[in-house]
Amino acid sequence: MSAVNEPRSAEEIARSAKSAFEASQLVSHDERIIALDAIRSALQENKARILDANRRDLEAAQKEVDAGRLSASLLKRLDLGKGDKWDSMLQGISDVAALPDPNGKVTYASELDDGLELYRVSCPIGVLLIIFESRPEVVVNIAALAVKSGNAAILKGGKESAQTALLLSQAIRSALSKTSLHEDYIQSVQTRDEVSSLLEMDKYIDLVIPRGSNSLVSSIQRDSRIAVMGHADGLCSVYLDQTAVLNKAIRVVVDSKTDYPAACNALETLLIHESLLPTVWPAVASALLSKEVELRCDLPSLSAINSLPSLTNHPHFSTHVVQSTEYDYKTEFLDHTLAVLTVPSLAAAINHINAHSSHHTDSIVTESAAAAQTFCRAVDSAGTFVNASTRFADGFRYGFGTEVGISTGRTHARGPVGLEGLVIYKYMLRSKGSEGHVAGEYGVGTDKKRFKHGSLPLDGGPFGNDATDA
Amino acid sequence: MSAVNEPRSAEEIARSAKSAFEASQLVSHDERIIALDAIRSALQENKARILDANRRDLEAAQKEVDAGRLSASLLKRLDLGKGDKWDSMLQGISDVAALPDPNGKVTYASELDDGLELYRVSCPIGVLLIIFESRPEVVVNIAALAVKSGNAAILKGGKESAQTALLLSQAIRSALSKTSLHEDYIQSVQTRDEVSSLLEMDKYIDLVIPRGSNSLVSSIQRDSRIAVMGHADGLCSVYLDQTAVLNKAIRVVVDSKTDYPAACNALETLLIHESLLPTVWPAVASALLSKEVELRCDLPSLSAINSLPSLTNHPHFSTHVVQSTEYDYKTEFLDHTLAVLTVPSLAAAINHINAHSSHHTDSIVTESAAAAQTFCRAVDSAGTFVNASTRFADGFRYGFGTEVGISTGRTHARGPVGLEGLVIYKYMLRSKGSEGHVAGEYGVGTDKKRFKHGSLPLDGGPFGNDATDA
Repeated sequence: MSAVNEPRSAEEIARSAKSAFEASQLVSHDERIIALDAIRSALQENKARILDANRRDLEAAQKEVDAGRLSASLLKRLDLGKGDKWDSMLQGISDVAALPDPNGKVTYASELDDGLELYRVSCPIGVLLIIFESRPEVVVNIAALAVKSGNAAILKGGKESAQTALLLSQAIRSALSKTSLHEDYIQSVQTRDEVSSLLEMDKYIDLVIPRGSNSLVSSIQRDSRIAVMGHADGLCSVYLDQTAVLNKAIRVVVDSKTDYPAACNALETLLIHESLLPTVWPAVASALLSKEVELRCDLPSLSAINSLPSLTNHPHFSTHVVQSTEYDYKTEFLDHTLAVLTVPSLAAAINHINAHSSHHTDSIVTESAAAAQTFCRAVDSAGTFVNASTRFADGFRYGFGTEVGISTGRTHARGPVGLEGLVIYKYMLRSKGSEGHVAGEYGVGTDKKRFKHGSLPLDGGPFGNDATDA
Repeated sequence: MSAVNEPRSAEEIARSAKSAFEASQLVSHDERIIALDAIRSALQENKARILDANRRDLEAAQKEVDAGRLSASLLKRLDLGKGDKWDSMLQGISDVAALPDPNGKVTYASELDDGLELYRVSCPIGVLLIIFESRPEVVVNIAALAVKSGNAAILKGGKESAQTALLLSQAIRSALSKTSLHEDYIQSVQTRDEVSSLLEMDKYIDLVIPRGSNSLVSSIQRDSRIAVMGHADGLCSVYLDQTAVLNKAIRVVVDSKTDYPAACNALETLLIHESLLPTVWPAVASALLSKEVELRCDLPSLSAINSLPSLTNHPHFSTHVVQSTEYDYKTEFLDHTLAVLTVPSLAAAINHINAHSSHHTDSIVTESAAAAQTFCRAVDSAGTFVNASTRFADGFRYGFGTEVGISTGRTHARGPVGLEGLVIYKYMLRSKGSEGHVAGEYGVGTDKKRFKHGSLPLDGGPFGNDATDA
């Protein structure tokens, strides 16, 4: 394992990341897979030292927990030796290596004129700055995504996992130094001050990915000129439409709310068509109470159940049913708490969601194809679901093989982001004519040539079948 | 034509734009085309009044030109009555109307499991804030793009064209009020203060598109949390590779430099492989001098021509050939001036371009397929061309039918941006099962279901063939 780096300024870190990125543009996909294998081996070789550092991080964190300055749940996330976490982390590298190359894909191809061929080819973005919280294995996960996607990366993890992250980074660096990629291709920084300085390096850094709270994302968007792919709150809704049937309603609502309440794709607000108050709603409420979900109900939904013995006799009714306030409809509880609102129509449900949801994922339970279509088109969220749990909003479940994060932005990438979210494209224009091609010959006059704009097959490319791997 | 709007606060403008956007989500593509026709008709009906306002803008601008406070070239751009400018503006609306609908395209489709279908469907971004400079017809151009792409828009033009822009906006508003779109779908603001306030409205505005100088783009990126699609400088290069042949070199260099020197896709730096100094370079230099291009040469390229009678006898030699400074290689001249640099290798050319160019468009002149491929992959620019003029970097020439701008960013959209750059996507997940689908049933245990992730045809969609037009 190589020695600890000399301290570098933020500008040196950013500049060397850009240099490593530029130098890597001719590195083939095969060589990137070799680099991923090298990283996996280096981590395995250094397992004992890394887990030792992890134990020191855990001991320091335990003191913070004992002093009441850190939550016990955060402590649990730090532990890299627990269960199969280490092996999963290494397997994750191999899984990313096995995914298709996101680069070199032709997404637009046009013969502008005879012998003048335009190709839009996917390529890496450049240098990524990724800021995340406590879990140390994210260092490895992100490094694998960066190597695979062709982007250089600068990582900043939580201070609680600093010693673990440092050794993970050193192992990665040491592995890279023996590959076609420069060792500065993946770098780590430790302090917030370094991050603040890096956020000014828009000359070298192309995308910031903050994985954390809304306030983290928001402060970075405010402080930096660099593009930000935010991964922020999820205030998800389920709407029980007039035509909703009971079993689907119960299954979708209970799973959305209770499968993993702390996740950003968990249900926070349940909207109910008023016609369902005497029919579907009591059984849904009962199922939720059985899962110990606190129901914060508006007056109509409260009235519909508070005189039904089947509900009021429920052991949790007296403690888990309260009247809601406007605050509840704006809140991501991330817990066994659910806001419930009665609406008179599909349109009212859509308006409520567009005004209150975080545009993450919203689901309708309905038997009406027309209502499903209206909901999916009119709800302005990254995911609009029909008769399916909001919990499906996830890169692995979507089939991406990996997840960079769940973007709540509306440009570049939206919703669960796989490797495709880490690439952009460039236009390659190739003249095959004997004289080259010049623009001045084209125009509207009688002496001018016209563009043909004929379509070309997307499975070709500017350089035949080896468009990216020379 | 409707009356002038009551003044509104920036927040009211932004909020009403978002409402108009949300309300428009069920408006079909056919209805959008009807709205574009209505805008065209309203403009034609109000032609006399609009050109009258344009004359008042022109008179005011003429006074500014006379006082030396405004450039004569800017004055020319203001004139909406000149030549076929009015008719071209109206034709542009029809041209945009005739383009394919950018929304409702399925770009990913996966059967996650039996009866659980995921579709990624293109959809509008939301509310756009577009800031541009003097040409008043941009109001109409952008309004047409916004209506077509499904985005609401707030426009701010240059103050020199304020009266023209106001009447154009009123005609658009009046036309929209008779269609399925709300009249607030397209709004205009007049002052910089309003823009400053709007840049804080990240709750309602989803994308800022500044079309202007680098400093405009940069200041907006600094001042706003909203995503920015910048349209900034172009410092484009042509590299004459070792294998470049003379006729292609002359044609590509002269066209890139002189077809329209004020454009962002014009050539600013010429890189020459040292082996070409005695062969190709003198004839290229002579051709450039004949077009009255000032050549700012490094010592080797200067020495190669300053003792050749064929060059020194050229009528422009004494006035148009000077030695370069480092400044010249960082400068977008936008004029008949060209920086010339000798390089020892393809790798040196690539390094120079990556360090100095604005990552807009760079071209290689070469007969070597290997050199072409290396250049296109290793040059980190939105356009990497082979034996073709940099002037081809343009949305119309690329076949997009329209151009929103040329993005110098590296996320969302890069290079010339057509309608596709104004859309994003949402994920529509549809359960066709009799019980709906819940996430808790999937996992790794023996009692759990596995995802299939089977591929589905892209030409279908969550709601059959009418995915977006109900």
